Amino acid sequence: MLFDLNRRLAAEALGTALLVATVVGSGIMAETLTKDVALALLGNALPTGAILVVLITILGPISGAHFNPAVTMVFALKRELPASEALGYVLVQIAGGVAGTLMAHVMFALPLWDASLKVRTGGAQWLAEGVAAFGLVVTILAGLKFNRPAIAWLVGLYITAAYWFTSSTSFANPAVAIARSLTNTFSGIRPADLPAFIAAEFAGALAALWLTDWLLRSKGEAAVVAKEVHP
Amino acid sequence: MLFDLNRRLAAEALGTALLVATVVGSGIMAETLTKDVALALLGNALPTGAILVVLITILGPISGAHFNPAVTMVFALKRELPASEALGYVLVQIAGGVAGTLMAHVMFALPLWDASLKVRTGGAQWLAEGVAAFGLVVTILAGLKFNRPAIAWLVGLYITAAYWFTSSTSFANPAVAIARSLTNTFSGIRPADLPAFIAAEFAGALAALWLTDWLLRSKGEAAVVAKEVHP
Amino acid sequence: MLFDLNRRLAAEALGTALLVATVVGSGIMAETLTKDVALALLGNALPTGAILVVLITILGPISGAHFNPAVTMVFALKRELPASEALGYVLVQIAGGVAGTLMAHVMFALPLWDASLKVRTGGAQWLAEGVAAFGLVVTILAGLKFNRPAIAWLVGLYITAAYWFTSSTSFANPAVAIARSLTNTFSGIRPADLPAFIAAEFAGALAALWLTDWLLRSKGEAAVVAKEVHP
Amino acid sequence: MLFDLNRRLAAEALGTALLVATVVGSGIMAETLTKDVALALLGNALPTGAILVVLITILGPISGAHFNPAVTMVFALKRELPASEALGYVLVQIAGGVAGTLMAHVMFALPLWDASLKVRTGGAQWLAEGVAAFGLVVTILAGLKFNRPAIAWLVGLYITAAYWFTSSTSFANPAVAIARSLTNTFSGIRPADLPAFIAAEFAGALAALWLTDWLLRSKGEAAVVAKEVHP
Repeated sequence: MLFDLNRRLAAEALGTALLVATVVGSGIMAETLTKDVALALLGNALPTGAILVVLITILGPISGAHFNPAVTMVFALKRELPASEALGYVLVQIAGGVAGTLMAHVMFALPLWDASLKVRTGGAQWLAEGVAAFGLVVTILAGLKFNRPAIAWLVGLYITAAYWFTSSTSFANPAVAIARSLTNTFSGIRPADLPAFIAAEFAGALAALWLTDWLLRSKGEAAVVAKEVHP
Repeated sequence: MLFDLNRRLAAEALGTALLVATVVGSGIMAETLTKDVALALLGNALPTGAILVVLITILGPISGAHFNPAVTMVFALKRELPASEALGYVLVQIAGGVAGTLMAHVMFALPLWDASLKVRTGGAQWLAEGVAAFGLVVTILAGLKFNRPAIAWLVGLYITAAYWFTSSTSFANPAVAIARSLTNTFSGIRPADLPAFIAAEFAGALAALWLTDWLLRSKGEAAVVAKEVHP
Repeated sequence: MLFDLNRRLAAEALGTALLVATVVGSGIMAETLTKDVALALLGNALPTGAILVVLITILGPISGAHFNPAVTMVFALKRELPASEALGYVLVQIAGGVAGTLMAHVMFALPLWDASLKVRTGGAQWLAEGVAAFGLVVTILAGLKFNRPAIAWLVGLYITAAYWFTSSTSFANPAVAIARSLTNTFSGIRPADLPAFIAAEFAGALAALWLTDWLLRSKGEAAVVAKEVHP
Repeated sequence: MLFDLNRRLAAEALGTALLVATVVGSGIMAETLTKDVALALLGNALPTGAILVVLITILGPISGAHFNPAVTMVFALKRELPASEALGYVLVQIAGGVAGTLMAHVMFALPLWDASLKVRTGGAQWLAEGVAAFGLVVTILAGLKFNRPAIAWLVGLYITAAYWFTSSTSFANPAVAIARSLTNTFSGIRPADLPAFIAAEFAGALAALWLTDWLLRSKGEAAVVAKEVHP
């Protein structure tokens, strides 16, 4: 790693804070300005996708720009991040995410602390969260393998799409989900609905890890693996 | 090919499934949230364009990322894919596309199987489908020749535009058309209207193949061809 | 030139046709689907910008992808295109543009030939057209000098913006303006209003040529020019 | 510097003028065409982001494409621009910005000079402006360090997002703020509210300079600095 752990943790915290400030803030702006919910979702999705491209490009070289415990878990399982550092990543992601919600509240002159009343539950939405996280992790792992310079764009575009094609509007991120439970605005989620969302996100991420472990192996790589397994 | 046929077929199936899940899912989301049909089309077109950039970038290195029988036919006719493999591609594209519709239905808590009642027929729309597929294949063949790294962007942007400039909203893809006949939501098409759409799509693709075979030949290449024909 | 004149003219005709089909077609689609004019403009601007990126990328290597008599005039004045070829370019651009309008009409089941009744006149709009063409040509000439691989994106993004910041919605293209006078739909312009628009577009393009001739000269290049003028 | 000071000042003036013409002009267009304020903001944000990508790409090689006194201050403090030149930059940015507002007024047939009545004040909006400028300068400094070719995209995408996630809609630019005080349209700001906005913007920029001075230092660079401080 080119950057020391303090800077990497700061980058994860800052990135997750700005990401959540964008998700929550643009949701507040959108629902304040229009009664058309599709337009509000557009005013929420486009800024989220745009800021992801920016944040991953500028902070990726420092920390990898996970901003997402499910992504950090995947890299820990792939042994690309020691477990102790992964734990640190997750903690500052959560702290940064919460700070992002608070920052959005202050910028829009809302009470600092709140809790969402928005119900997001049921098997359909849980499946949607699983699919959302599955697609995100496939995008990241295949993108890093085949086109690393494009990774920030791929994630930003994927999330822009996933806001629309999943019934849950694609949280796909446990730290962001926790942060969004603390705002009773457009992007909120009832705290009671968090556990199932988070479980679905981790499950989707694991499914992606399992699939890509097979799918992304070219002929040569597959041959090497076969030899190692059956020498 | 760097990847074995199983993985390539899996990539075609997965990509077509995610593409159709995005087309159908974002259509459901959009029509649920707004009564303005132009806004619904925007909420359908932007995610479709975005996911195409992602899917072609991450799966293209594995299978070529056709996700489209008309495109596979073009590459088979150009002898870049054996006929037997092309048949496999088409079958998994159709299966993957249908799976994508089902996945969207489950994510939005709709009945699994359905059939569209949306009438899409008449000479104007058939021409539109032909133009849509013609433009898509010209984009792919010229894009691959002149700017291969940009191909995912080109296809995503082309389809985003074609949703708007064709009266059919540009299916341009027989496998996606079949999958969309199985949903009675925003993006659906009546099964009875499928054959003419699919015929128009193949015709447009063939026209593009015929045109580009002439148009894309630089002076040197044209001279070589002339010599071969009249030695 | 790597491509013979026939292919270059075909590329100019095809590109202008698809550009106009997108401008006119997306305008028809948009005004059919919504009563909100801002939304219609968005549904007109985004496809136009997107198709420009595609068309310039895939046809630029063949003909330069002018699709625009004002741009062709600029390159002729810069001696990068012989006058006789420039004339050919302009003629096929106009023919292609008209074909694009007709194609849009057929795709949307409208009468083939029509004439716009949309009034677009007055000093404010003429200035706007001049500014629009000025900005377009500055973008092209500076873009080609400093970042040639990005030129398709630059033009697409510039036009997307110019649809909104000019009161004329930025035609910025005499061939496209002529083609748009033949449709009585969202993107039309009354034939009587054409001459002033076209004059303003050429004037803006010339102003850009004059400015960039000075602005884009780095210190070394300026020194060389000074020596030639005052040896 | 490859370009002499006159050309660099002209590039700063031209760029800021076109930027402001886009911000003010698209705001006028948007509020004229729709009553939905979220849609108007979208019609204001997308063109602004798009023109930023264009202007920074085509004028950056000449002047650095600051278009923003807060950004110029940052580069002066980093000793990358002499103080005397920085002063010139700021003056032409303000002059260019004002010219941009006037140009938008003429293009839309509005009275040349005006003053905004739009109230934009209070601690929440001041914080938002500080956050907006902080994020902009972090984006610029980290972007230049890690991915210089992407800088135009990063700024365009950041501002597109910041229009939505800040309650002030992210002016983030003292010269643009001054220019926007002279229009009583969508993007205006009451002259009386300018000083606090400008102060917040400079404060945010300084905070970003302070943070990135620490955050962007890789292990090797940090070691060098430590040695210099404690030799």
